[in-house]
Formats: sequence, C-alpha cells, structure tokens
Amino acid sequence: MILEHADIRIDPLKSSAFEEAILRGVSTVIAQAKGLKGYQVQRCIETPGRYVLLIQWETLEDHTVGFRGSDAFTQWRAIVGPFFVQPPVVEHFELVGQG
Amino acid sequence: MILEHADIRIDPLKSSAFEEAILRGVSTVIAQAKGLKGYQVQRCIETPGRYVLLIQWETLEDHTVGFRGSDAFTQWRAIVGPFFVQPPVVEHFELVGQG
Repeated sequence: MILEHADIRIDPLKSSAFEEAILRGVSTVIAQAKGLKGYQVQRCIETPGRYVLLIQWETLEDHTVGFRGSDAFTQWRAIVGPFFVQPPVVEHFELVGQG
Repeated sequence: MILEHADIRIDPLKSSAFEEAILRGVSTVIAQAKGLKGYQVQRCIETPGRYVLLIQWETLEDHTVGFRGSDAFTQWRAIVGPFFVQPPVVEHFELVGQG
C-alpha cells in the first residue's frame, strides 16, 4: 500500500466551487481507477486555499503508470486543474507505523 | 476530528535511528495525550529524509493547548527534535470528504 500525498493551492475565494469539484472528481473518476484503496480530501485551517489530497493505492505503479497514463487522468485534471494557482506538489509515501 | 499534519525533514543517513525514535515517541508519549484518536508515520519515497506525521485529534485545542502545553510535549521534542534539520511545518486540517 502506497500513500499519494498531493499538496494543493487554490484561490481561497473559490473554496466552495473547488471542494464541490474535487469531491466530484475523486468520487466519479479516481474511485474507478485500478488499485484505488481509499482517499481523503483535507482542508487546511491555518492557510486558506491549502488542501491535502491523500490517496491510498495498492502499488506505486497503479498511480504513476496506470492512472497517470489513462484517459481518467485527463478527465481528472480537467475538473480540478483550473483551480490550481500553482502545480500541486505530489509525492508518495510508505507507512512506517501507525496506531 | 482534526488532522495534525507535520512535514518533517531529517538527515537521510539517520533514517533508521529516526524511525525508531519517532515510533517510540508516538507510542509512548503522544499515545497518552488527551484527545488522541490515531496516528500514522509516513516515509517519502521520492525525497529521502522527508516524513509526514499525521495525527488525528478530537479537537484542535487537544493538540495546540492540551498537548503543546504539557510536559509530554517537552518529552516528545527531546526524542525527535535532535533529528530535525529544519523546523517541521505543522498545520491542521478538517476533513472535506473521504471514500
């Protein structure tokens, strides 16, 4: 299991429209992707316009090869891309421990 | 429920010792804190030495007032602080949606 961690910045004046769009994007496009195990959309309290999208994938390649190489990625970016005020910072993580 | 999101940078050559320390810190010190609901320690794949610590708190104040104002915070920072190569970036998030 791999965690995709996307740090997203939008215009805070467009928060409501962005939240509607990203929830629609994850539930209609990303949720259909192979290897998708779960997701969370998190809104920052201290920095308006900052969001973190956390997506659990079965393998790294399910995201970097499977999803990014699919038409679904184009659909996803068409829904959320217009809101980004800078390119999202996307990296992947492995679980060290939890409780 | 509030997500504490700490973006941590350490010397990658000290990864093993840091992972042992942070797991010991969260399981012995943070796990005892009032309002603690769960935690994850995540290791970045693309950027060696980057970690994200995700902690679920019942309320924002359980972290910012209760935990940070307690002796436990001093104990916690004594365990993990020596590894930080820069101050961790800590912000809090509210769940917009999940699936």
